[in-house]
Amino acid sequence: MSGYQRAWLAQDALAGLVVTLMVVPQCLAYAVLAGLPAQLGLYASILPLLAYALLGSSMTLAIGPVAVVALLTASAIGPLAAPGSPEYIALAVILALLSGVALLTLGLLRLGFLAQLLSEPVISGFVSGAALLILVGQLGPLIGITPYGQTAFDLGTSLVEQVGQFNPATLLLGGLSLPLLWWARRSMARWLERAGMRLPLAELLTRLVPLMVLLLATLAVVVFDLDHGEGVAVVGNIPEGFPVLHLALPSVANTARLMMSALVIGLMGFVVSVSVAQSLARLRMERIDPNAELRALGVANLASALSGAFPVAGSMSQSAASFSAGARTPLAGVVRAGITALIVVGFTVVFERVPRTALAATIIIAVLSLIDLKALRHDWKYDRADGLAWLGTALGVILLGVEAGLSIGIGLTLAALLWRSSRPHIAVVGRVPGTEHFRNVARHQVETDDTILALRVDDNLHFGNVVPIDERIRAEIAHHPLARHLVLELSSVVHIDATALMMLEGLNHYVRSQGWELHFAQMRGPVLDKLRGTALFAAVTATSGGAPFPSTHAAFMSLASRESAASGEPGRATAGT
Amino acid sequence: MSGYQRAWLAQDALAGLVVTLMVVPQCLAYAVLAGLPAQLGLYASILPLLAYALLGSSMTLAIGPVAVVALLTASAIGPLAAPGSPEYIALAVILALLSGVALLTLGLLRLGFLAQLLSEPVISGFVSGAALLILVGQLGPLIGITPYGQTAFDLGTSLVEQVGQFNPATLLLGGLSLPLLWWARRSMARWLERAGMRLPLAELLTRLVPLMVLLLATLAVVVFDLDHGEGVAVVGNIPEGFPVLHLALPSVANTARLMMSALVIGLMGFVVSVSVAQSLARLRMERIDPNAELRALGVANLASALSGAFPVAGSMSQSAASFSAGARTPLAGVVRAGITALIVVGFTVVFERVPRTALAATIIIAVLSLIDLKALRHDWKYDRADGLAWLGTALGVILLGVEAGLSIGIGLTLAALLWRSSRPHIAVVGRVPGTEHFRNVARHQVETDDTILALRVDDNLHFGNVVPIDERIRAEIAHHPLARHLVLELSSVVHIDATALMMLEGLNHYVRSQGWELHFAQMRGPVLDKLRGTALFAAVTATSGGAPFPSTHAAFMSLASRESAASGEPGRATAGT
Repeated sequence: MSGYQRAWLAQDALAGLVVTLMVVPQCLAYAVLAGLPAQLGLYASILPLLAYALLGSSMTLAIGPVAVVALLTASAIGPLAAPGSPEYIALAVILALLSGVALLTLGLLRLGFLAQLLSEPVISGFVSGAALLILVGQLGPLIGITPYGQTAFDLGTSLVEQVGQFNPATLLLGGLSLPLLWWARRSMARWLERAGMRLPLAELLTRLVPLMVLLLATLAVVVFDLDHGEGVAVVGNIPEGFPVLHLALPSVANTARLMMSALVIGLMGFVVSVSVAQSLARLRMERIDPNAELRALGVANLASALSGAFPVAGSMSQSAASFSAGARTPLAGVVRAGITALIVVGFTVVFERVPRTALAATIIIAVLSLIDLKALRHDWKYDRADGLAWLGTALGVILLGVEAGLSIGIGLTLAALLWRSSRPHIAVVGRVPGTEHFRNVARHQVETDDTILALRVDDNLHFGNVVPIDERIRAEIAHHPLARHLVLELSSVVHIDATALMMLEGLNHYVRSQGWELHFAQMRGPVLDKLRGTALFAAVTATSGGAPFPSTHAAFMSLASRESAASGEPGRATAGT
Repeated sequence: MSGYQRAWLAQDALAGLVVTLMVVPQCLAYAVLAGLPAQLGLYASILPLLAYALLGSSMTLAIGPVAVVALLTASAIGPLAAPGSPEYIALAVILALLSGVALLTLGLLRLGFLAQLLSEPVISGFVSGAALLILVGQLGPLIGITPYGQTAFDLGTSLVEQVGQFNPATLLLGGLSLPLLWWARRSMARWLERAGMRLPLAELLTRLVPLMVLLLATLAVVVFDLDHGEGVAVVGNIPEGFPVLHLALPSVANTARLMMSALVIGLMGFVVSVSVAQSLARLRMERIDPNAELRALGVANLASALSGAFPVAGSMSQSAASFSAGARTPLAGVVRAGITALIVVGFTVVFERVPRTALAATIIIAVLSLIDLKALRHDWKYDRADGLAWLGTALGVILLGVEAGLSIGIGLTLAALLWRSSRPHIAVVGRVPGTEHFRNVARHQVETDDTILALRVDDNLHFGNVVPIDERIRAEIAHHPLARHLVLELSSVVHIDATALMMLEGLNHYVRSQGWELHFAQMRGPVLDKLRGTALFAAVTATSGGAPFPSTHAAFMSLASRESAASGEPGRATAGT
């Protein structure tokens, strides 16, 4: 606060006003997407913004209803109550409450690292899959029918069954809104610029198109009485002022079920928020503190629950709008909260006859930009496992539902981690001529010694990879009939677990039975601290002075001279490939 | 076969006879433990032995009913049918069938590595917990009551409730058998040796005590008519000859549930068998092929199903008996199968009046040796996470049941893997004076250069650890105000996933914004292959000739000379601690 500059105030106030006008359509639309009365989208955009402005670490992250979180909310409550019913609303409030408690707890316990379970491909695949699922779900409202289902397949089937019952006036309104919104997003700014307008102003106008479309569509409803005369579905009666908390408490079983959903919603909202905040912070060289973000998002969700609304998160589109409108500090959010409160108190009657089809068009255009096939292409090309995780998550979300998709994604990344770790990279190494460095004999022109087999294991040794490591080492021993020393270069090993310790004991036993000696080289500090005191360590280092060789080079020098002293001839050196 | 020596034949035949007599009590007892008629323990010791003798890779592993597998069988079928009922028996047969199919499939697909999900501490904790659970469960039959429950808590409660209804004659029989068996296992061999007997003979006699106890207890039942007169529970009517397959097929839902149990039983049996086989093979310098073991165990279980029996595995106690009786080859198993078949055909009437309390005493003494608190102490001391996995698995098995315990164990080891991997070891490195080696400045006396910050990351870079790595690197950058070069030594990194690639891109962006340059050194081949072609690689290696520096030493030489050329003065060198 102390560093706040006078000039920023005007910028923040203007940004707050502009952003509010820009995002009102989305706030209404995402509440409807969550299965709730549209005005709850506005309620969720007052207190949560103030809470985040006080506690958040990002200067430009805008909090509010978010497409993915709204979808998760609908999917969590949908099976428990009828959309729009008082019980449904109460469940949404409880979901926001639980989600806030979960995030706050994680933040206070500094457990933000849990979010690392979600890899970049899983997040990207999840958001893309969810966006497609939302898009399919909004095709019904766009033409005036109500398909049901939680998966793309169910929704699509329901859509096809009902498509004949479309409402002509609704189709017309939606059919006009959609291409207009599409054009505004794609080419209007450039078109205005070519027509002579300054680019910043053109972009500002472009961003206000959703609100104008909504107002025009509403005007059409009012003028032609489309809701009563033609059966066009509208948002409906919006009570003025703040909601009375009508908490018909849900059953214990349902609350327990909601706990899990709240954790998923909280973590997903957190992960999405942080990635938005970080990409914005990067542009301004600011710094994000994940644990502060957890706490701020937690309190924002508590504030949303207090407002009788639903879970919120950091929104990419709202943040980008705020950023491009020139917001400098969280004060822009405070201004936005104030203006939204004014709208809730005084102007909600205006939104009463907003046609749902226009909101559906708003949602469809908004989520289109979330489908990131470029990320899939990039991940697939760079790393097949990451590409599979993206695809598995997205397909899971689309075909099986959001929570199943997320589980699949997490399962695939953990499986990849374990699979990769179960195939450790092991190299036979030799000396780069004229240096003290040892490199893979298969990749470099290096010198080896027939009496010494030096292996470098490029992974920690643990239960998941001891079997292949043991097998590979024994195979190499069999391939080096002249050698008498096995040197394990442990430069990449920082942990050896109890299972691996047993493997090494067995290996040492085997090596001795073959008349060989086992040696350790370049052992890292943490491993040394742990192994010292074990019987294995004492047995192996007995021949190297009670400590591992500091380097593979030192091991070669010492062992080769020992061998030549024993045999009376110098160690035979051959060149590898 | 071609290498079979004449002298081995007599040894194998004798070992087969002795082992059969030794293990008959256990075979009967474990069938009862699995909730099945006692004679099924003999059926499970004929065909499976022949199958394993043909296909197994271990010379001395003895196949048959095993305590842990019997417990898993009871826990899988218990909720589905009444113990001893025809439906229960049919489910046991199907379990053996499915378990065989699962093992055979895994073996043919060479998926043996799946067993690596079970770390040494989890296996040890599981076996110990299961042994204690079995022990508690056998206290009831020992005194003539029938407690019920799948967890130690339920069994214990049931035991306390019913303890007043104990059967005096049963208690007497069991109370005599138990200390006799205990004494035989603990001190009889030494006692006989002191009395002048040769040790091998003394040990042989000791191992025959269980059979003698069983015969004596049965004799007591017959002589005093304890089963009819005093209500002592006996094994009951055993039909002679092979069983008619009374397959009342279970429902689809139950079969699906059995599939999962069969996989768990198969894998657990496999893991236990392999660890037994390997510890025996080590003594004789033989070699175990895990995939061959999978196939052999799979066929053995199919053979058990064909016999109308239940899942089998390699048994530690039976193998040890066979080993110490002098068995040389799987032919000992064939002999044992033949003798067991003779017993089934001709002598089962002898076992009809075996009191259950004597079997309970046999089981209790047998499983006592499976409780391995020494392993817990060792694991706890060596690695807290491994100790916790042991304890969590054992307590889970005892308090929540076998499958819950196994899940807890696997969950704990995976969590430890992820947790460890989320806290990568990162060291600032400097040159060991007079060498080309770079070591941790916090552990070694090394030379550093103020203009260069060299960091070594000792782990793969992936979604699970990018956040802490990124944070640590930025913190180090802030602590080195004079530096202009960040050298990442990637000697321990063999994989960089898509999430980590994004982190590195962000880091490069940040480093440049601070006026620094990012460099890679000592990049491993697999990483190089993957990164080449990315924009990041091109950007970072632009200043080092299109390739990463081969070593940190090379990076220092090149960068220091560049810096001194630019500034007109030599790079400042300081000594670290």
